Amino acid sequence: MYQLHIANKNYSSWSLRPWVLMTALDIPFTEQLIPFSTGAVQTAFKAFSPTAKVPCLVDDQQVVWDSLAIVEYLAERHRGVWPEESAARTWARCASAEMHSGFTALRNQCAMSCGIRVALPEISAALRDELARLDVLWTEGLTRFGGPFLAGKTFSAVDAFFAPVVFRIQTYNLPVSPTVNSYCQHLLGQPAMQNWYTSALAETWREPAHEDEVTDNSKRVVVADFRA
Amino acid sequence: MYQLHIANKNYSSWSLRPWVLMTALDIPFTEQLIPFSTGAVQTAFKAFSPTAKVPCLVDDQQVVWDSLAIVEYLAERHRGVWPEESAARTWARCASAEMHSGFTALRNQCAMSCGIRVALPEISAALRDELARLDVLWTEGLTRFGGPFLAGKTFSAVDAFFAPVVFRIQTYNLPVSPTVNSYCQHLLGQPAMQNWYTSALAETWREPAHEDEVTDNSKRVVVADFRA
Ligand SMILES: N[C@@H](CCC(=O)N[C@@H](CS)C(=O)NCC(=O)O)C(=O)O
Ligand SMILES: N[C@@H](CCC(=O)N[C@@H](CS)C(=O)NCC(=O)O)C(=O)O
Repeated sequence: MYQLHIANKNYSSWSLRPWVLMTALDIPFTEQLIPFSTGAVQTAFKAFSPTAKVPCLVDDQQVVWDSLAIVEYLAERHRGVWPEESAARTWARCASAEMHSGFTALRNQCAMSCGIRVALPEISAALRDELARLDVLWTEGLTRFGGPFLAGKTFSAVDAFFAPVVFRIQTYNLPVSPTVNSYCQHLLGQPAMQNWYTSALAETWREPAHEDEVTDNSKRVVVADFRA
Repeated sequence: MYQLHIANKNYSSWSLRPWVLMTALDIPFTEQLIPFSTGAVQTAFKAFSPTAKVPCLVDDQQVVWDSLAIVEYLAERHRGVWPEESAARTWARCASAEMHSGFTALRNQCAMSCGIRVALPEISAALRDELARLDVLWTEGLTRFGGPFLAGKTFSAVDAFFAPVVFRIQTYNLPVSPTVNSYCQHLLGQPAMQNWYTSALAETWREPAHEDEVTDNSKRVVVADFRA
């Protein structure tokens, strides 16, 4: 049985990727959740991961310590991780790898916190450019492969890679096109996403570093908090 | 025939990855080099790549626009891109994906410029941590899979992913362990690396933004310049 090490569902965007993929694809795994805790994180995560980061998949002796590598590991063993059709698979891998190495403004300025809603006083130029790129990218995928998922009829790894972005758009009420918005609603409606979201809301841990990042050290207003 | 779009060999670290992989593995391709040019880059690169970035592989109608996605695209079509053995392949993918999304201090503070040598007045804490991680990671690969390449006997995609780091270590004379140093020397001796390096030295383009990045806006001393 796979062991999937993750952190707080409210905060941990990289953990969400393999978790939502495996859940949506019915790939059985045991969830091992260790909440972030200032200072102790390095030590606790170091016990299973060489980078002291989550997610980390353990399959018997094999340790797979990066979300994109986990996806490729699963793709060698299970159907549906990437689209079957070559052009859709290539596109999905390009979009996922672009996400893996890019979209830094979105990642740094809009830290994931599923359970709250935050008003952004302004959208930086870098963030605006990334939202524009997201619109072009998602629209291309949805149009070329027919939707309702990014690379076709079924949920695949590229949807998992953008799942944290969907939560960020919801949390910060980011200005997006109707196409992007309707894909977000579609993804938020998936049982695997609802399952994660419900658990995130039930969490009572509050990690100061993450809370500060979300509110930009109190420069932003939290307009709603749905957490327990 | 594959078309591989790249930029200046002296500067373009992401371009180096698929170029050195395809060259080392004797995968035929036509090189399409467009030098960086302030302002015009976006427009020129936009003609072939949806992100206006290099590298970009074009295979007939198929556009593959990210270095890691290019590697997976080639791995579906050619032997030797990833190691044959499952544990080595998994390790190589983890290390490459970690590089793709991480090592930001190394990337931001030590921009690639193959042809020059720069004295760093100090090594930041973040850079020191990343060099320590690099040492652990490379040592693990070289030990577990027997060397002389990171994941075994032959040059594979994980060596290509760290090839820009090897040039950076050389350019900035970064403090590394004997193991890291000897792997660097081994990689620098590969014909594909020498081929790239020779072309980089022959380039006469100087792009102000890149030159400034390398010298940290003149806060660092260029101790040697081997370029034409
Ligand atoms: N490239 C990694 C990045 C993982 C990552 O940065 N995870 C964060 C949490 S979402 C983490 O564990 N941070 C803890 C730390 O940096 O100490 C992946 O894709 O899995
Ligand atoms: N994730 C991309 C990143 C590519 C990238 O950032 N390329 C740089 C050059 S090395 C670029 O084209 N920059 C031009 C620009 O940003 O306008 C990949 O792996 O291919």
